Amino acid sequence: MLGQMMSKQLVVSALIDHAERYHGETEIASVSTMDGLELTSWAGIARNARLLASALDRLGLAPQTRCATLAWNNRRHLEIYYGVSGGGHVCHTINPRLFPEQLVYIMNHAEDRVLFFDHTFLPLVAGIREQLETVEHFVLLGPRDEDAGSAFPELKFYDEVIAGGSTDYQWPDLDEGTASSLCYTSGTTGHPKGVLYSHRSTVLHAYGSNTRDCIGFSATDVVLPVVPMFHVNAWGSVYACAMSGSRLVLPGPDLQGEALVGLIDAHDVTVALGVPTIWAGLLAFARSSDTKLSSLERTVIGGSACPPSMMAEFRDRYGVETVHAWGMTEMSPLGTTNVPLAKHGTLPEEDQHKLRENQGRPPFGVDMQVVDDNGQSLPWDGESQGDLMVKGYWVLDSYFHRQDEDLLRDGWFATGDVATIDPDGYLTIRDRSKDIIKSGGEWISSVELENIALAHPALADAAVVGVAHPKWDERPILVAVPAPGQSPGEADLLAFFEDKIAHWQIPDRVVYADELPRNATGKVLKRDLRDRYATVLTG
Amino acid sequence: MLGQMMSKQLVVSALIDHAERYHGETEIASVSTMDGLELTSWAGIARNARLLASALDRLGLAPQTRCATLAWNNRRHLEIYYGVSGGGHVCHTINPRLFPEQLVYIMNHAEDRVLFFDHTFLPLVAGIREQLETVEHFVLLGPRDEDAGSAFPELKFYDEVIAGGSTDYQWPDLDEGTASSLCYTSGTTGHPKGVLYSHRSTVLHAYGSNTRDCIGFSATDVVLPVVPMFHVNAWGSVYACAMSGSRLVLPGPDLQGEALVGLIDAHDVTVALGVPTIWAGLLAFARSSDTKLSSLERTVIGGSACPPSMMAEFRDRYGVETVHAWGMTEMSPLGTTNVPLAKHGTLPEEDQHKLRENQGRPPFGVDMQVVDDNGQSLPWDGESQGDLMVKGYWVLDSYFHRQDEDLLRDGWFATGDVATIDPDGYLTIRDRSKDIIKSGGEWISSVELENIALAHPALADAAVVGVAHPKWDERPILVAVPAPGQSPGEADLLAFFEDKIAHWQIPDRVVYADELPRNATGKVLKRDLRDRYATVLTG
Repeated sequence: MLGQMMSKQLVVSALIDHAERYHGETEIASVSTMDGLELTSWAGIARNARLLASALDRLGLAPQTRCATLAWNNRRHLEIYYGVSGGGHVCHTINPRLFPEQLVYIMNHAEDRVLFFDHTFLPLVAGIREQLETVEHFVLLGPRDEDAGSAFPELKFYDEVIAGGSTDYQWPDLDEGTASSLCYTSGTTGHPKGVLYSHRSTVLHAYGSNTRDCIGFSATDVVLPVVPMFHVNAWGSVYACAMSGSRLVLPGPDLQGEALVGLIDAHDVTVALGVPTIWAGLLAFARSSDTKLSSLERTVIGGSACPPSMMAEFRDRYGVETVHAWGMTEMSPLGTTNVPLAKHGTLPEEDQHKLRENQGRPPFGVDMQVVDDNGQSLPWDGESQGDLMVKGYWVLDSYFHRQDEDLLRDGWFATGDVATIDPDGYLTIRDRSKDIIKSGGEWISSVELENIALAHPALADAAVVGVAHPKWDERPILVAVPAPGQSPGEADLLAFFEDKIAHWQIPDRVVYADELPRNATGKVLKRDLRDRYATVLTG
Repeated sequence: MLGQMMSKQLVVSALIDHAERYHGETEIASVSTMDGLELTSWAGIARNARLLASALDRLGLAPQTRCATLAWNNRRHLEIYYGVSGGGHVCHTINPRLFPEQLVYIMNHAEDRVLFFDHTFLPLVAGIREQLETVEHFVLLGPRDEDAGSAFPELKFYDEVIAGGSTDYQWPDLDEGTASSLCYTSGTTGHPKGVLYSHRSTVLHAYGSNTRDCIGFSATDVVLPVVPMFHVNAWGSVYACAMSGSRLVLPGPDLQGEALVGLIDAHDVTVALGVPTIWAGLLAFARSSDTKLSSLERTVIGGSACPPSMMAEFRDRYGVETVHAWGMTEMSPLGTTNVPLAKHGTLPEEDQHKLRENQGRPPFGVDMQVVDDNGQSLPWDGESQGDLMVKGYWVLDSYFHRQDEDLLRDGWFATGDVATIDPDGYLTIRDRSKDIIKSGGEWISSVELENIALAHPALADAAVVGVAHPKWDERPILVAVPAPGQSPGEADLLAFFEDKIAHWQIPDRVVYADELPRNATGKVLKRDLRDRYATVLTG
């Protein structure tokens, strides 16, 4: 017997409709790539999104046509999010920092028909356009630009495209399972793989984000998504903020500390989201200026582990709470956020701070477990390390156009991370599965060793990888990049690990390098290091 | 093209699974009907819910069997919520304050096979059991009770029933559209009508409730649902609190001020939910005691309009924020909550307080409009009064076993309220549609006139109804119930309205009564008053 409730679908257009009806006047501030600050509103975004959807219809696109973006965080990009998905197409955000050959691969694999891009990326797009096999419409984000148009004859201009749309446009009725958006992961090996989100997963992710203990945006918040809209939909914040009716400040291309501090102070930003590198830049600038970041209440930090010193500086110097978050492209991306439990309130302050450093617990909608090599679930004791498995309403089922692969194990997705979970369900990511060092049956986290090494004053950069060892199978070695003018000795570097970690986990050897190999998004290519130093302990 | 995300269903068992896994140790305090305070936890609730579901399977119930409850807010009732719905049956909560003939009608109409009830209701159930056509299993909430068993031979005992369940029980996989729970509305006319919630509507309602600007429970909250679990699932709080992992304090049968203050102070309650009458009793006791209600941060007040003086007392004397909420059984029930927008923060304090008095705005998931007699949408100007229409993920589509009726108008449910909506989407309920007074084409709210009259020191109670008038079609009259020892004159009472409302809205006449006719849940039967005084202005 079915319940007798309305069968309204969970669709992206419902989010922008809600924002328009109940928060229409709420301001959206946007730093344009070319024209400085623009002010619009949720009503303005909704209106242009409908114009765009109508204009796309007139282009004769088939349902769920992939429309790609190479764009910063700005209001036109936001309009595209809602106009493309709301209109029944697939908003395919692309990371412009990928290598050109990866961009070409991704757009051809996705069969993108439309490519929206910011001025910044005009030379990039001009350089690869001959290799894009499916793109029919190149749309520059802005008004007509004669210079660009003369160099790129088939170019369309966003403002002209939407001017051709109809103000009477009505969102189509879509099944909530319909694809809404697409994002490719940038792995360190192989071709990028696409994650095809549905309307349902997108809306449920926004609900999960907006529960109070996850991120919990409010209509009284002013939200600065520094995390790019090409990084898993700015962590879903641009959907969640339509749900909550929050003010948005879209920072455009300049993510340096000075620009961000300027935006925070000028717009009374209360919540900002981004990766640790961004906040390092912001804090460095803030220290040298007289800002108090007085409006800022919370930073949500993810993408990689947040250094405790950064959380402390936000807290102690600026009164800003840091919410440490963890997720993946395959998870839309929110997996966990570190927010306290009631019982934590009675702990000594230092213990409370310490508890905020791990990756936290999932909102309702995500479940997780750690398993051993046989797939057996491990205890939640904060000690047992295993492969982290996840499932939930906004976790992928299969990669785009790879339905044939059997990606899940008993319904769980293997994250590729090694983790522990404590008795309260708080997650600590220990390492990537492929980077963990298996020494005589014990697991050593390369990340923990790197964090120690990076604190050494004579090092500019450091990586730890496992290499073959005749007795222990694998042992860690430290790849050290000395700071300018420094030449720390091996004994000195290894002694630095004493008392900071169990003795048997200290690396066996130090090798020196001028720099670490990294991929297009800045991840260290450890596989290259393992190959390079494969015989250090055996040869 | 469909998205490629997991197809996990939105089901009630996922809520209790989440609470058990991530908040298993979190305490549930429960005032038992017979045994005083009991302490359990989300893990304890989950374990007993599975035992119950398993025991129900052994009773051989067909899928979606309706299992009724006549019970206070206590931990066994909570276990039934999850065990019955999680196991694929329908949890049918019944208001024990209804007249016996209504109880019989409801249970026969619902075809309840199981009836769980608290000791309090043993005489009630014993009195009607011969008339219950479908109930096969009568289950007393508690351990074996020889006295009760001897008077009621077919009686089962809850603690024995679940002791017969299996600890290995696994929740069944249910489609999220499956019926999960049932609640009948207590109208002032006709038979009660049932609202049959689905798993999906229940989970989405919990998501909506837990968004920060709706109620937004946190794992750091200690929640006291004073609103009964037989009133639209305690406004959904017992689902939303599993989602958030909040501590729960279930108050049992005693909802007097002294008992509630005792619970708040003993358990550090941070959020309490209930109707104005309950809070009036609590505040009266609090004034006479030395409590500071120091843990209490918020009260959520709904069920009927919250007097501004009550909000002020909570705020000014105890530092407690009141969230004014509005909803209906047909809406699961949450429709709107009054929480501020960013721009309100700059208003003078008094204006901010004033803004908190209306019914507020909907969370994402509910939409509303006001329409005129022709169904045309009226402007959101705070002035245009019309019939309030709603739709959303947790709004009913049709009443239980009345699918044949065409309840909706263009997909909207008519609430039966007359309301205005202001430019920011804030709702003000003006009156019930059938109670509003239509005087010469203008609408007069009986509720507004009653609120004025009730402030007159010589009145104990008051109602305003419209009766036939030869010139104006209808005019208001005041039905006055004098306070003991008082006999206010008509001129005095009518003069009391001067300067409080437009002159033409002042009632034409005062009639006196010893008391007002009310239905089983305390609503004034205005239809009876209209009949009784029909010819006052024409005869």
